[in-house]
Amino acid sequence: MFDKINFRTDLALERRDLYKKANNLDKEIDGIKTEEEENGPRIRTSRVKVLDKNGAEAIGKPVGSYITIDIQKLKVATEEDIQESAEVLAKELRVLLGEHANPKDEILVVGLGNQYVTPDALGPKVINEIDVTRHILTYMPQVLSSETRPVSAISPGVLGTTGIETLEILKGIVDNIHPKMLIVIDALASRSIERISSTIQLADTGITPGAGVGNTRKELSQSTLGIPVIALGIPTVVELATLISDGIDIFIDRLQKKSESNEYLNKLQQEDKYEEVKEALKVGEYNMIVTPKEIDDLIENMKDIVARGINMATQPENING
Amino acid sequence: MFDKINFRTDLALERRDLYKKANNLDKEIDGIKTEEEENGPRIRTSRVKVLDKNGAEAIGKPVGSYITIDIQKLKVATEEDIQESAEVLAKELRVLLGEHANPKDEILVVGLGNQYVTPDALGPKVINEIDVTRHILTYMPQVLSSETRPVSAISPGVLGTTGIETLEILKGIVDNIHPKMLIVIDALASRSIERISSTIQLADTGITPGAGVGNTRKELSQSTLGIPVIALGIPTVVELATLISDGIDIFIDRLQKKSESNEYLNKLQQEDKYEEVKEALKVGEYNMIVTPKEIDDLIENMKDIVARGINMATQPENING
Amino acid sequence: MFDKINFRTDLALERRDLYKKANNLDKEIDGIKTEEEENGPRIRTSRVKVLDKNGAEAIGKPVGSYITIDIQKLKVATEEDIQESAEVLAKELRVLLGEHANPKDEILVVGLGNQYVTPDALGPKVINEIDVTRHILTYMPQVLSSETRPVSAISPGVLGTTGIETLEILKGIVDNIHPKMLIVIDALASRSIERISSTIQLADTGITPGAGVGNTRKELSQSTLGIPVIALGIPTVVELATLISDGIDIFIDRLQKKSESNEYLNKLQQEDKYEEVKEALKVGEYNMIVTPKEIDDLIENMKDIVARGINMATQPENING
Amino acid sequence: MFDKINFRTDLALERRDLYKKANNLDKEIDGIKTEEEENGPRIRTSRVKVLDKNGAEAIGKPVGSYITIDIQKLKVATEEDIQESAEVLAKELRVLLGEHANPKDEILVVGLGNQYVTPDALGPKVINEIDVTRHILTYMPQVLSSETRPVSAISPGVLGTTGIETLEILKGIVDNIHPKMLIVIDALASRSIERISSTIQLADTGITPGAGVGNTRKELSQSTLGIPVIALGIPTVVELATLISDGIDIFIDRLQKKSESNEYLNKLQQEDKYEEVKEALKVGEYNMIVTPKEIDDLIENMKDIVARGINMATQPENING
Repeated sequence: MFDKINFRTDLALERRDLYKKANNLDKEIDGIKTEEEENGPRIRTSRVKVLDKNGAEAIGKPVGSYITIDIQKLKVATEEDIQESAEVLAKELRVLLGEHANPKDEILVVGLGNQYVTPDALGPKVINEIDVTRHILTYMPQVLSSETRPVSAISPGVLGTTGIETLEILKGIVDNIHPKMLIVIDALASRSIERISSTIQLADTGITPGAGVGNTRKELSQSTLGIPVIALGIPTVVELATLISDGIDIFIDRLQKKSESNEYLNKLQQEDKYEEVKEALKVGEYNMIVTPKEIDDLIENMKDIVARGINMATQPENING
Repeated sequence: MFDKINFRTDLALERRDLYKKANNLDKEIDGIKTEEEENGPRIRTSRVKVLDKNGAEAIGKPVGSYITIDIQKLKVATEEDIQESAEVLAKELRVLLGEHANPKDEILVVGLGNQYVTPDALGPKVINEIDVTRHILTYMPQVLSSETRPVSAISPGVLGTTGIETLEILKGIVDNIHPKMLIVIDALASRSIERISSTIQLADTGITPGAGVGNTRKELSQSTLGIPVIALGIPTVVELATLISDGIDIFIDRLQKKSESNEYLNKLQQEDKYEEVKEALKVGEYNMIVTPKEIDDLIENMKDIVARGINMATQPENING
Repeated sequence: MFDKINFRTDLALERRDLYKKANNLDKEIDGIKTEEEENGPRIRTSRVKVLDKNGAEAIGKPVGSYITIDIQKLKVATEEDIQESAEVLAKELRVLLGEHANPKDEILVVGLGNQYVTPDALGPKVINEIDVTRHILTYMPQVLSSETRPVSAISPGVLGTTGIETLEILKGIVDNIHPKMLIVIDALASRSIERISSTIQLADTGITPGAGVGNTRKELSQSTLGIPVIALGIPTVVELATLISDGIDIFIDRLQKKSESNEYLNKLQQEDKYEEVKEALKVGEYNMIVTPKEIDDLIENMKDIVARGINMATQPENING
Repeated sequence: MFDKINFRTDLALERRDLYKKANNLDKEIDGIKTEEEENGPRIRTSRVKVLDKNGAEAIGKPVGSYITIDIQKLKVATEEDIQESAEVLAKELRVLLGEHANPKDEILVVGLGNQYVTPDALGPKVINEIDVTRHILTYMPQVLSSETRPVSAISPGVLGTTGIETLEILKGIVDNIHPKMLIVIDALASRSIERISSTIQLADTGITPGAGVGNTRKELSQSTLGIPVIALGIPTVVELATLISDGIDIFIDRLQKKSESNEYLNKLQQEDKYEEVKEALKVGEYNMIVTPKEIDDLIENMKDIVARGINMATQPENING
């Protein structure tokens, strides 16, 4: 029997790939359904459905839908690329909203993270761009279409700055203003530095902030908050030891392809080297979480995509038009 | 009988002065007690106590204590000026905290305002500098002194960005995490451009956000939140019509002193010219709220004073020392 | 004969209006030619040509072209308003560029101001958005159209931060890299708070930084730098004493219209009250330069207009298309 | 004979260590002199002197002095740590200044980098904190001590934003205002992620911007600018392939220590794996430059150290006192 995998990624898609590789599976995992779609030359959408307990245990994620949108070369994105990406996001988000809420049900958008830490600032930055309507529907309903959905938005800060668990803050607000659904934006860890601020994962199963970087906070989900929670996660950091561990795999792979095959290397590559690498690198400096030099521009472009996508998806299409 | 005065200032001290001037009072207002203190060459503290209903009606402020700390030349403040000002603030704040809470009662510090609008960014900026202890007392109590008070901090955003009344957000959080007292930081309007980001008003009566600029939000006070609310208000804007109305008074005053006395001007000066001026200037552009060119530096220095003052006052002196 | 007017505004259009009012002129000033154009419901363009010495002396501005573009309600501008305004600016700028340089002559765009002072940050912010081509034409010419004009951009800082006069910095750079023309962006003072970050003045006569606020630096112009200097000035501050002086005029005007005519007021209004007002208000606090509360948003929108306008105007239309 | 090493670091100290390791040298390199000093528990200073052509060729750095100040745990630095580090920097810098200029010779401080890219923003941020005196000595000499040195400061921007080589900008300014010495602040690449924004390298040999990340600009030095150039470099990024290559070495090392010795691995470790690794990882995503998640805080603390250190070192000690 195969041991539990330490995935070190928040992305369901990466976990499914790791599970298949570790178990030498050619076909799909039992209890998982996957489909892929190309949306033009730079955007690709993958949908991973966790169907049952078996699928959930395999990749360590609850039953539900996980949609991954990968956008290539976001750093040099044009206005058109950003608009196109926002439309792909809006389309997927609209489907999820439709499955869990009615068109005029109130939505609260939550931007997790610390705006003073560049790779963690995406959530607060998106909140500043959300088209909130709840107060206008209360104080001046006549200026809006009667189809307008009440939308509100909050950026609750992080435990280190507030001293309060995010769940406690949100529980208080949800119990007091009674939205019908949450959309929670958070920065994630991925295994791939190429995915940094270039990938969006949508999930209808809620979120556990900090899970990807071993600094786990209390879960935000229907079971803790009492309403559906759509999580919109964007990888912005990678653990350095993961990068090096993966780097060694690729390196060994290449040595072997150069027909310098070697029994020892074969054995080496089949093992999970993460703990070994982490232990080996424990001298201090490798125990770090890194982000690309260009993170400021990546976050700025991703902020536009996410804010526009949410603004389009939360209101009826004729209002946005 | 004297008509109600439109004070157009949030500062109790300015209201008391305006009331006395409008009613030609030489002695103190009945129901008000005032004292002044010089704290070195640049800092002056004034304490206005509203003792009863008569005092409250005179200046339109509830019964309670209002402490005004004026700091001269804050724009060019040195590190020593800032530290000295923070200590004066801490001393006054400690007295207020002692009157309304026990030394280890949990305090939630709230920074109102919009960090993307320079004159409204003080609250959120202060929150980022507050020494929060609540989560450390929960997760790692051994690293702190046993006398440490639990302090948490939040910057809830503004109605225009969140779609939610600040009272609703705070009510939810207070009901869920149960602090014993709030300290609420807000940007105010004053009548005096010299006071912009150079004056701190402390009050134990709560606060009505936006009251100074005619954009009133729901009151944050013991009666709405169920716990004592210390308000820490800093003027950062002035209404232009108020400035001009006051400017005309000073101008007429000077003309008269130059022995160009004139019956008509005398009459003019006794009237409240604000509505007249506002009506006269209604062409559009004068209907504005202004702030000094140097507002960025003023806010930065005031942020340091307020954050340090709160950090000193909320913990026992031996912890800070 | 009429005394010299202290205009206290950098805008040629405001100066021409003040001169006409002060001299009770119905017709145009001798030596000045003016035309106006509506560019849609929100944008108005005025062109003041100073034709000769007489016109130059009247308004205290050198012979040359001064174009004022006023944009209404910029604070709440939509993406379309911004694009439309940028196109109006580009059209006017293209005419000026065509009069003083050839299509492929190198242009250096200079953003004056201090990015850490919100009302003074426009120049540095625009520079960050300029499409520079000079280095690409040097190192990778093949990726650009052969019609591309070399454009470079610099934000030299302010005297208080650098210790160096802007003219000295620019003289050194111009003598070393030899552009054929400068476009200099600067924040100006106007008399009208309504014009703050809502008006663009284009002039082909250079600029004297700080002139509008009595803090004059060395002139940047063809005579000091040896090449044509197009100045692109945007009012972002107003002197408070000017506002009050103008406010008193409007107030007296209204009193008189209410048939409360009065010999003394009539006399008062004909005089220049600025020095009187400034003296009267000298107690300290009125000696200030102010900016609207909304200056952050105004600067942000104006930055987009100016950067796009310059980017369109400096390259041939088919390249932008 | 040993082949040329590709050091992939700007730090002379790291190059010296790599050279010694690659050549299995126990004693010091011929033509290099090194000394170390502990400055309290958190700060260590190393001085590498390149004495002659042999030393220069060994480590690929010109003859001159290279001083490395390593500060541990800068991310969680207290105010005292920062002040102490600034004093260590000031002491070293004073020696270098004394060797190359007289006490009242004018100094121009240059902050290289792009303030909108967090890991590249150190130079511009420092410039904003430099105590410039040149303009005061020109316009109001009476307010300063007669011993004051003229200091000016500029942040010229980067080629991608200005379109102009930094050397061209500085050449123009130096030729026009004639300082006697430059201090140039730049972000460097190091091999060690632990050194990111925790190490300062001082050198009296000038600097080649971008050299550490394979994006070389024109050299700034006495030979190109005609005056001595003190370079103050701070590592803020690491190349990912370098990290992984070093990580593989450490990993193999550990495997061998676990007595799993292996002929093949021995051979592997003696080779320079960088090109191999870079080639192997060429799939795209590993071809990246990374920075720690905490870069914002690191840059903020380092900015305070560098600005204070320069401000102390450029003026006589009695003026700072």
